[in-house]
Amino acid sequence: MRKVSIIGAAISKFGEHWEKSLRDLIVEAGTKAVVDAGVEGKDIQAIYGGTMASGRFIGQEHIGALIADHLGMNPIASTRLEAACASGSVALRAGYLAVASGMYDIVAVGGVEKMTEVSTEEAAIALGGAGDQEWELFMGATFPALYALLARRHMEQFGTTEEQMAACSVKNHDNGSKNEYAQFRNKITVDDVMNSGYISEPLKLLDCSPITDGAAAVILCAGDKAKKFCDAPVEIAGSGQASDSIALAQRKSLTELSATKEAAKQAYTQAGITAKDVQAAEVHDCFSIAEILAIEDLGFFKKGYGGKAAEDGETVLNSQVSINTSGGLKACGHPVGATGVKQVVEGVWQLQEKAGARQVVGLKNFLTHNVGGSGATAVVHVLRRA
Amino acid sequence: MRKVSIIGAAISKFGEHWEKSLRDLIVEAGTKAVVDAGVEGKDIQAIYGGTMASGRFIGQEHIGALIADHLGMNPIASTRLEAACASGSVALRAGYLAVASGMYDIVAVGGVEKMTEVSTEEAAIALGGAGDQEWELFMGATFPALYALLARRHMEQFGTTEEQMAACSVKNHDNGSKNEYAQFRNKITVDDVMNSGYISEPLKLLDCSPITDGAAAVILCAGDKAKKFCDAPVEIAGSGQASDSIALAQRKSLTELSATKEAAKQAYTQAGITAKDVQAAEVHDCFSIAEILAIEDLGFFKKGYGGKAAEDGETVLNSQVSINTSGGLKACGHPVGATGVKQVVEGVWQLQEKAGARQVVGLKNFLTHNVGGSGATAVVHVLRRA
Repeated sequence: MRKVSIIGAAISKFGEHWEKSLRDLIVEAGTKAVVDAGVEGKDIQAIYGGTMASGRFIGQEHIGALIADHLGMNPIASTRLEAACASGSVALRAGYLAVASGMYDIVAVGGVEKMTEVSTEEAAIALGGAGDQEWELFMGATFPALYALLARRHMEQFGTTEEQMAACSVKNHDNGSKNEYAQFRNKITVDDVMNSGYISEPLKLLDCSPITDGAAAVILCAGDKAKKFCDAPVEIAGSGQASDSIALAQRKSLTELSATKEAAKQAYTQAGITAKDVQAAEVHDCFSIAEILAIEDLGFFKKGYGGKAAEDGETVLNSQVSINTSGGLKACGHPVGATGVKQVVEGVWQLQEKAGARQVVGLKNFLTHNVGGSGATAVVHVLRRA
Repeated sequence: MRKVSIIGAAISKFGEHWEKSLRDLIVEAGTKAVVDAGVEGKDIQAIYGGTMASGRFIGQEHIGALIADHLGMNPIASTRLEAACASGSVALRAGYLAVASGMYDIVAVGGVEKMTEVSTEEAAIALGGAGDQEWELFMGATFPALYALLARRHMEQFGTTEEQMAACSVKNHDNGSKNEYAQFRNKITVDDVMNSGYISEPLKLLDCSPITDGAAAVILCAGDKAKKFCDAPVEIAGSGQASDSIALAQRKSLTELSATKEAAKQAYTQAGITAKDVQAAEVHDCFSIAEILAIEDLGFFKKGYGGKAAEDGETVLNSQVSINTSGGLKACGHPVGATGVKQVVEGVWQLQEKAGARQVVGLKNFLTHNVGGSGATAVVHVLRRA
């Protein structure tokens, strides 16, 4: 396989954008990424876009064609991919394989979701389609409830506390305060989280990522051509993807996401590294407990010690491993189809030392970890300077 | 790029399956394809699945994970692709590129749609998401209306008649009568079509493809390993995909689908052939006028002469070019996410001389043509014996 590098990266401001449509968001991120890459629109040979539930959020399918159309990129091939909240990452992986195959030299990868045009109830139902519709959502199990089950089990088995989970949110808001694109830039305390009211016990409002409108885009280039366009291309050194049962009831364990472990193994092997070689990561903190599961399953901390690590400050900026430098899903926001691509944009900026006040020092390998549903899909990428 | 071959192919019976869920349909087609390929489940390294609007049809997104789960294929990567009614073909193309890249040697590609769990009105709205939601569907333009506009313009500019369009449906029902998997196996006459009542003038009921439940699957293998599993592997000799404006109002012409022409050009070039070298094709006849546009835009007949060719019998089985040997979308049925894969299954069976009473004689190159929306996406593949 050919090596593939990222030569441009951009995101839209994440937030509640009543005045912007999905089209506006993708044009904003897409055009900025093209400019950042130093290519021209005509150099782009194909588009891969991630969107989770545009059919339910805005009544629009066929998002690939919509993106090509509104970016003025017809007639190039433009394709939508979907894997629930991991849609952005599977789009990246498809773009990566398309360039690696030799079919294309330069492709654009985007992720987008416009979530605020429906009520919170409708959004919960749309998002519930990421789990098992027949055996979970239909029975009333929305996503806060599913992750609350995972949290309960982790607390029971390892003594993880609500305060430890809260520490993830506090740290992510701290990082988000340094990110101009983040939905929430306010700092919060453990007390704020503890007093924020139960959504699904033990998860409280400030354990939960928000509803967000946003888009992100990167430009991929064949590795041997990347330096023609970009002084500091970022190589996709490893790409892993794995599946697990869509319903929690079928899982062997509720204290790990086995798809995360498998996807990480693939990505580490391809990149020729282990978890110890990763200095910073964007992980999938749709709920605070998800971040704890992730930092354990990715191998950064021993199983059962993720909560303690978070509480002890071992995941803050420039600690053992800087987790969710962008602010994560919690503070940067979680436009579900865009998140996987946004994680990669953050990795590119960190590796190019463009991350300003949240810059990680001495960074060599940056990892992105994106989960669909309650862990039925996990995608892991390892990035480093080409 | 490595060569890629198809070593197994299967479809479920197409029709209204009140007793079967989407899960049942994909398991039916998927397991039959694995058996046909002579591989074992553990040999499959990844899955690519096409589904258009499962979020609206059955409240379920994350179809990739669902497929892997219900086929017992965890933890391999499983990814959904969507391009409206061309979802199956973009899934095939993604699987093709993944094997061509060298990442995988054997992958499964599926397409599936379960359309009968909602009312006809809800289905029309779900399908309307294939066009421009803001500028077409929201204004009341459902798909029969959009294709009626294309038909009107073709009639105006080239003198195409309703009887000529009807000839496409008559021929497709004739072919479908020979296909045990087809939704409709009854033969019809031009008078039947003419008397079937307007849906959106000039299109009548029997000009329109039906609402269908169904699934289709193929197994792809690296070309140099295909003969280990299959005596008669079928090579994907050309693959093309192109985009056009999602709304009809933005098109330069209403008498051609420019995305079809561009995708065909790519596929012909890669396969080293021209339209003259194609003896049989599955083309996207969501409405009868769409078949006329297709056989012109693919280069089988001169622009404006597609209606006459259909009327003169130049597209029937074992004529100049055998069109829609399976019965097409009209008679075989149109489970939107499955159609693109079903077209390829028909191509494989024809090239392997397994098509029984509808076998094309002297077949060398088989073409599949799948359209998303009113032509915003078109995907063309050229198949031949490896």
